[in-house]
Amino acid sequence: MHYETPQFFHVMQYAAAADGDVIDMVSGNPDWEPPEAIRTGLTQYAERDAADFQYPPSDGLAALREEIAARRNVAVDRVIITNGTGEANYLAMARAFDDSRGDEVVLIDPVYPYYLGKTELLGGTPRLVATDDDGRLAAEKTCEAIGEDTALVVLNTPNNPTGAVYDLESIRTVVECAAAHDALVVVDEVYDHFDFSGRFESALTLDAGNVIVTSGVSKSMAITGFRVGYAVFPPALIEAAKTRHMLVNVATSRPAQRAVLTAYRETDPGYYAAARDRLESRIDSFTAALDEAGAAYTTPDGAFYVLARFDDFPGTMANVKTLIDEIGVAGMPGATFGTARTDWIRFALVTPRVDEAAERLAAYFADR
Amino acid sequence: MHYETPQFFHVMQYAAAADGDVIDMVSGNPDWEPPEAIRTGLTQYAERDAADFQYPPSDGLAALREEIAARRNVAVDRVIITNGTGEANYLAMARAFDDSRGDEVVLIDPVYPYYLGKTELLGGTPRLVATDDDGRLAAEKTCEAIGEDTALVVLNTPNNPTGAVYDLESIRTVVECAAAHDALVVVDEVYDHFDFSGRFESALTLDAGNVIVTSGVSKSMAITGFRVGYAVFPPALIEAAKTRHMLVNVATSRPAQRAVLTAYRETDPGYYAAARDRLESRIDSFTAALDEAGAAYTTPDGAFYVLARFDDFPGTMANVKTLIDEIGVAGMPGATFGTARTDWIRFALVTPRVDEAAERLAAYFADR
Repeated sequence: MHYETPQFFHVMQYAAAADGDVIDMVSGNPDWEPPEAIRTGLTQYAERDAADFQYPPSDGLAALREEIAARRNVAVDRVIITNGTGEANYLAMARAFDDSRGDEVVLIDPVYPYYLGKTELLGGTPRLVATDDDGRLAAEKTCEAIGEDTALVVLNTPNNPTGAVYDLESIRTVVECAAAHDALVVVDEVYDHFDFSGRFESALTLDAGNVIVTSGVSKSMAITGFRVGYAVFPPALIEAAKTRHMLVNVATSRPAQRAVLTAYRETDPGYYAAARDRLESRIDSFTAALDEAGAAYTTPDGAFYVLARFDDFPGTMANVKTLIDEIGVAGMPGATFGTARTDWIRFALVTPRVDEAAERLAAYFADR
Repeated sequence: MHYETPQFFHVMQYAAAADGDVIDMVSGNPDWEPPEAIRTGLTQYAERDAADFQYPPSDGLAALREEIAARRNVAVDRVIITNGTGEANYLAMARAFDDSRGDEVVLIDPVYPYYLGKTELLGGTPRLVATDDDGRLAAEKTCEAIGEDTALVVLNTPNNPTGAVYDLESIRTVVECAAAHDALVVVDEVYDHFDFSGRFESALTLDAGNVIVTSGVSKSMAITGFRVGYAVFPPALIEAAKTRHMLVNVATSRPAQRAVLTAYRETDPGYYAAARDRLESRIDSFTAALDEAGAAYTTPDGAFYVLARFDDFPGTMANVKTLIDEIGVAGMPGATFGTARTDWIRFALVTPRVDEAAERLAAYFADR
């Protein structure tokens, strides 16, 4: 295995070592409060009988699986609780290699770098397909890339880093092409609560036998450190995934599961709406500054990232470091996300200092 | 992957469905209280700033790694915090397959069934080597089984299910044989706090470049559901394991890590001593009853299981079910643990009803 430590650790270390005040627009940690019920759920759990501190069922607490099944409108026996969406994606991707479907993994470029790393870990060969210019899923082009060697296609909507929300018909087209070649499709919907377009539809609505949907509460409940995610498998595919989960992790941490269950039950929809409103307002001010800076960018329909391209200032690691040194704004080089957007820089809007960063960028590029 | 759901789920389901009152001597969950600091640590964590609810370092909270490194007397950069000892064993065993060392995994029979499952998950071929009659590591025989195809040897001391505590010289012999064939040795020491013999010595004291030691707090702190374990790697082997951990799990659940850190800091050695005393007293009364029943057994030097063999009553699944039906005592069939002890039944002593179970067994076999 030769997967390198992700570039964002490199950027974060560089930013941390910088002299001046640096605004972190690198990491994907929500900067707002989790639901209050996360705290109360954890505190209540801490007082429970010692028997409740022992192994939960390997596939997750029954009540949590039922809660998620009801919310996603699927049968509960299709749901497995995982150590974050990260493990859900690992289990889902690994499932494609259990049945001699092929070695190739079709990934959409720009690509979340962990999909590349997991592909390599599993012994697969990645095949990158570029989005269209707006970051939308290029369904026809993706279908052309799917063939006899394809084991798996990985989609992510709302998308990191483009902010695109894929329309369901495009996903359906890709799912059908994949099915025709006996390939699975993993749809990572971890940003499902961050849809500003009103157009997001889960791939679960396709009810397809070759689709695995993954998600989690790391982003929606602002608890990336709790590691609670889940995968929804087609019935015929879940048993082997449960076995892998048991052999790798035994089970998912019970205090975290219990806190999340409490938060699901007690959190008002207004909590999620407030997070969306906050992000939309940040997107507005940040993209306004990008206009001032004369930059190209894609306005996100979902998730919480903006990709921007500045004139004569390609998004290389060197230029990312220049922005850290010169104006104290840390983004991510486009090359982190595959080959399609190497000129671009990704900015994460999960900092209360988005306006300040926007002003710094606008001033810097106005002066250049 | 064709690993079957472990037999103990089958037995537990059978016991749960039985008509009468059944004493569970199947599962390995401690039945005593966790350290009080687990509860207070969790409650204090619940009140922390939201930033502390976000991703911890992938390899674990720095303070927790330092605490473990100090306790195990190793450099902190050799320690990775995992989702329980289960993930630690997965990472450690997987590490043996990264460098074309071979396909064979030498396992000691009787064997903890997860080692077999993980071997299959990783594409390895298990090779079972029987212990001597007392459950001690048969170092010479194990060395004979190690050859060019050996990638890995897995040891477990104190041992589940035999209760043997391996002497360090036997481990050293096996480690040297493995090194001569470029094989790794994983030593699972999760029962390290349950040594009744005073002879337990960690394989870390060998300071060998091919030894990975795994452990965790599931048993020692009576929190099997928290999923906090760790692996100590030789410096040259840890980076690839960290990468795998990141790609599979991203990180270990932070509330659980924080509670464990608090418990490490605040728990008196008397807590662990009391658990040992309780178990020793249970071993005494249980083995006394086995004497009454005319059974053969190995008195455990460590861990919390007793293997017993009854005259004309081999430890088959059918006979295990007979004991559940006739006297309400549920143990595990010997065939769960490989091929060496198929006539035996394993009883876990982690129930407050050990005396009652012992009386039932003594009476049943006295009457037969």
